[in-house]
Amino acid sequence: MQKITVAAIVLASTALAAVAQQPKPEDEIKLRKAAYALVGYNFASLGAMAQEKKPYNKDEAIKNADFVAHLSTVPKAFFSEASKQGDTKAKPELWASKADFDKKMENMNTEAAKLPQAARADLAALKKQVADTGATCKACHDDYRAK
Amino acid sequence: MQKITVAAIVLASTALAAVAQQPKPEDEIKLRKAAYALVGYNFASLGAMAQEKKPYNKDEAIKNADFVAHLSTVPKAFFSEASKQGDTKAKPELWASKADFDKKMENMNTEAAKLPQAARADLAALKKQVADTGATCKACHDDYRAK
Repeated sequence: MQKITVAAIVLASTALAAVAQQPKPEDEIKLRKAAYALVGYNFASLGAMAQEKKPYNKDEAIKNADFVAHLSTVPKAFFSEASKQGDTKAKPELWASKADFDKKMENMNTEAAKLPQAARADLAALKKQVADTGATCKACHDDYRAK
Repeated sequence: MQKITVAAIVLASTALAAVAQQPKPEDEIKLRKAAYALVGYNFASLGAMAQEKKPYNKDEAIKNADFVAHLSTVPKAFFSEASKQGDTKAKPELWASKADFDKKMENMNTEAAKLPQAARADLAALKKQVADTGATCKACHDDYRAK
């Protein structure tokens, strides 16, 4: 019974089931975009609080920060050479300067990983860490993401 | 300087910046699909391990389980009545039976929340919890997701 259910569910995940080990290029693009969309949503909320354009809510900030920290680790696995072409805003320069991109990604992961602690501290700590993390997002977008 | 950086980043998040508080219907659809895509990817990996179609790797299972548990909490916020129409496989029946859908979503969240502990135990525990979680995915897909 359990075996049948698992099989049904894994099949139900359709295209994604097959990619559990080596995703196809179009699935890499889909998965990295999914992670960035959720990072963007949660980081926008933190940014709005940091700018005092939205009321500061510590519980919400913690939730947002935990998502950003966790999800920011996802995209790096989904930038294979084969995923250069397709429905993506990533510029070809990204793959031509892969070591620099990887370093910038690592910087972003490092700063994003500090958000949960900052969110659990106070608004001043959150503001600082949102700025530091934002700068690492921007560094990569400036060079490797098309407008 | 920090203030400028934050402003730049929040603006860079374009459409999503505006949705930090109340997403537009098309952004709700985008965000719930993003969460499901990442849940599906990570759950497919767990399913393959549970079925022994992929070598069991405890570290990978823990990573997958943590993502499924965390991300499975995302979609429920993005099923407003206004998001019934658009680029979605969600059937209109979902909104006609919202209380039942909400209950099924809660069941899924409850089972998914047990995956991290099961993944940290052993393969037998993982198999059981993957099956129990999978059943709660399927319950909702059967009724509320178009093929």
